[in-house]
Amino acid sequence: MLKASIAPDGQEYQLPNELEDLEEKKILHRITEEQRKLGRKIVAVQGLGFVGCVMAAVVADAEDEDKKPLYFVHGQQRPSLRSFWKVPVINEGRPPVNSSDAEVPEIFHRCIKMKKSLRATWHNYAYEVADVVVVDIQLDATKPAFGEADKGYCDLSAFRDGIRTLGKYIKPDCLILVETTVPPGTCEYVVKPIIEAEFSARGINVKKNPPLVAHSYERVMPGAKYVKSIRNFWRVYSGVNDKSREMAKAFLTDILDVENYPLTELENTNSSELAKVMENSYRATNIALTLEWAKFAEQIGVDIFKVRDAIRKRKGTHDNLLRPSLGVGGYCLTKDPVLANWAMNAIFNIEGKLEVAIRSVDINDTMPLHTIELIRTEFPKLKDLKITVLGVSYLEELGDTRHSPSETLIKFLHESWAVVRVHDPYVEYWAEMENVSIQPDLQQAVENADVIIFAVGHKLYKELNPEDLLKMCGNKPMIIDCSNFIDDTRISHYLRSGCKVKGVGKGHIHSLKK
Amino acid sequence: MLKASIAPDGQEYQLPNELEDLEEKKILHRITEEQRKLGRKIVAVQGLGFVGCVMAAVVADAEDEDKKPLYFVHGQQRPSLRSFWKVPVINEGRPPVNSSDAEVPEIFHRCIKMKKSLRATWHNYAYEVADVVVVDIQLDATKPAFGEADKGYCDLSAFRDGIRTLGKYIKPDCLILVETTVPPGTCEYVVKPIIEAEFSARGINVKKNPPLVAHSYERVMPGAKYVKSIRNFWRVYSGVNDKSREMAKAFLTDILDVENYPLTELENTNSSELAKVMENSYRATNIALTLEWAKFAEQIGVDIFKVRDAIRKRKGTHDNLLRPSLGVGGYCLTKDPVLANWAMNAIFNIEGKLEVAIRSVDINDTMPLHTIELIRTEFPKLKDLKITVLGVSYLEELGDTRHSPSETLIKFLHESWAVVRVHDPYVEYWAEMENVSIQPDLQQAVENADVIIFAVGHKLYKELNPEDLLKMCGNKPMIIDCSNFIDDTRISHYLRSGCKVKGVGKGHIHSLKK
Repeated sequence: MLKASIAPDGQEYQLPNELEDLEEKKILHRITEEQRKLGRKIVAVQGLGFVGCVMAAVVADAEDEDKKPLYFVHGQQRPSLRSFWKVPVINEGRPPVNSSDAEVPEIFHRCIKMKKSLRATWHNYAYEVADVVVVDIQLDATKPAFGEADKGYCDLSAFRDGIRTLGKYIKPDCLILVETTVPPGTCEYVVKPIIEAEFSARGINVKKNPPLVAHSYERVMPGAKYVKSIRNFWRVYSGVNDKSREMAKAFLTDILDVENYPLTELENTNSSELAKVMENSYRATNIALTLEWAKFAEQIGVDIFKVRDAIRKRKGTHDNLLRPSLGVGGYCLTKDPVLANWAMNAIFNIEGKLEVAIRSVDINDTMPLHTIELIRTEFPKLKDLKITVLGVSYLEELGDTRHSPSETLIKFLHESWAVVRVHDPYVEYWAEMENVSIQPDLQQAVENADVIIFAVGHKLYKELNPEDLLKMCGNKPMIIDCSNFIDDTRISHYLRSGCKVKGVGKGHIHSLKK
Repeated sequence: MLKASIAPDGQEYQLPNELEDLEEKKILHRITEEQRKLGRKIVAVQGLGFVGCVMAAVVADAEDEDKKPLYFVHGQQRPSLRSFWKVPVINEGRPPVNSSDAEVPEIFHRCIKMKKSLRATWHNYAYEVADVVVVDIQLDATKPAFGEADKGYCDLSAFRDGIRTLGKYIKPDCLILVETTVPPGTCEYVVKPIIEAEFSARGINVKKNPPLVAHSYERVMPGAKYVKSIRNFWRVYSGVNDKSREMAKAFLTDILDVENYPLTELENTNSSELAKVMENSYRATNIALTLEWAKFAEQIGVDIFKVRDAIRKRKGTHDNLLRPSLGVGGYCLTKDPVLANWAMNAIFNIEGKLEVAIRSVDINDTMPLHTIELIRTEFPKLKDLKITVLGVSYLEELGDTRHSPSETLIKFLHESWAVVRVHDPYVEYWAEMENVSIQPDLQQAVENADVIIFAVGHKLYKELNPEDLLKMCGNKPMIIDCSNFIDDTRISHYLRSGCKVKGVGKGHIHSLKK
């Protein structure tokens, strides 16, 4: 039986066979020749995930003064069952990601169909012809147990394999620009030695041709400003030597809006790698801080969100203060402190740990348990309790469920034998929780519920009229507000209707009761 | 022998006797009558410390549309040996604080000598006539041992005494505006009950005349914008009931620039008290985070300050990131998380603690030990080592030594039998470290030193020419940079001259050696 990679829309794509491999190589060769004649440099983007696919399009969209493309981009995706479908989908002019940003489908259509400066491929020949390879391989941290971020580690084997592939194929003067968030030390102590070894095996003199490895991390936010978060945003970069640093600078200057968002050069790749994980650790720590104050606030009649607004009035010194919530999700804040902490020991052999940052990850990971505590104030036993969770993505107005705190919440509710129903207007299928089906109809999701948890701040939930919700529910459910999603007027309405209402950080609710 | 209170300039002031007490009361009575005839309301400011004295002047400086004073202010200072001198000094038209802000002497001269809307007194009669009392009593947290902030507590007895005095004297409709940073719950559970008890003892019906207690915390920065940090700055306020909240709003609107810095009302005093200690806990936590990353950076060739600058480019989300240094000093960040943590147990009977915030205070308190570690990389034994500390205040360009991290540093250096010399252009006499004399002459402070520590970022130190310093020293001292006070060019100069250089968070120094 032939194997097929299945796109989210259900369309099946057969993995390529040997004949198609040979044919693809010829196509790549031909296109590259044509593009070189047009004076364009060739870029390969390694990995077409959340970052890589849009990055590939942004590079392909870069123009010279005459509005002609500066680069031709081969978007490279390994022909895996999980992801191969992205290659044909992109080559049809469609983005392989769902986004609320209208620029995403536009830029793919423009670069594939009109400018013809982008093409996806599964073939490694893309690396042979590249002047620049942008590395966007996914890299995860693993936490062995719940609440044990300090024992978290990073399995670099897939990343090493990807880099080794580059070492086998790239030209000696090709720039490798690592965009993946990596443990500090990776470019210097992982990427460079692998490339040197592969170069040496190919008979390339690494004294004369030292690998050109640079690092410049992305700050992609896959929401309404997805494309802008790549092109119109501040970038930090460095390289393992002067030449790689200069080449990275020239490349980034070509593709980004560096006039309005100037580049920041750091002196070595350790610095630029550290900057990325430190900036996310900064946010993770701020969030962890807010949770303990939220719990305090709940017990002394204080609405922590109004306090937060008051504090944030001090612009420039206090306005980065974040908010408590159901928990912290997504791909960055949950793992980046772990990457750094692991690198300290594993790459640099330094004893000790990044205590504040790692403790913060634990606090954030276990934050959903606090929402369960709030339910228990009313229902000490959760068995058979009908609980509806509104929202499973990790961000408002987005269908991204990676490391969603709703996942932790629901796992613990299941362990207590609660009967959980789940709704999210942006999520049809929950990849990380295959056994949980998303109820597409809000009415059916809340009907007869004992507890309704406002877990994510989708507009749909924030704007819910209490009367409508209670009618759909047909019950007087306990209402849980995880992060200030229900305003005081609505809370009062629920209270007057006989519902119990609790909220993370919302200690003032009892005073609204009148 | 008569007791005298001695001003910083050496001038002695006899404490008042009974006759003077009687005379002062008559004066207060007469002034108050005159001022009432002029249509002015009477304000008493309780406590003329760093905040109270300038607050008194700001209130006295407030004008109506015709540029006439709105309030007459009695600045009240208890006749203690330590502080009585402030009364005569202020009444001479001089500020009782040293400041780099030229507005400070101006506003005192203007209000005392020209507008005649301010007068200092030691007499409690000021409270009897007041329409508003602003409470600026000092309130400290005590940490029983080094690095044990979680056991820190707050001794409220002096504060309670101050409030009791008010209860004995104020009119029933007088607004008590607490400006002191207090443990959350203080207005509701300490101030209000005391006033109620005193009112009842005076035969005042507290049902008809519930105490009018409000809270609005200051955000004073005693530097070049001392006055502006009171008048031109955002304010948060609340009250224990509607009337006190409204009166506080009206009063603050009269005296502050609320047009450009709008007021924020919170629903109860717990909220406003929490806001203050939370905003300082937020900063304390951010600083604690940076130290662990600084240590990491030192070991992997990274300059954490350049990384910080790169991260802070993300305006609005990352620009509050603070910096590692010798340590954290001053009156707020070192104690405010302790006030909150203590209040949780002592006032609200809540178990648990504010873990992130309290751990951060410990990290910050012990931060100076890291600078000693840096010295030990070169000199494992500190005995008889000649160490010069440049700077003992807790902030740049300021003579304020309260809770200065240099204090901790020097105590530990003394314990290791090092020979310590100390210099600071802004400090003549170090009140907290009476046994340490400040060397006024920089040359004599550094002469023949084995180690020179750049502890505080006074401009004088930052601009020091390495050649000049080395000439004054006559040695090749080890140079320690506690918080990016020496730029790379200067560091290179020191290195070329044969000095060892180390810096908190400055792992890149060895690469500058060439």
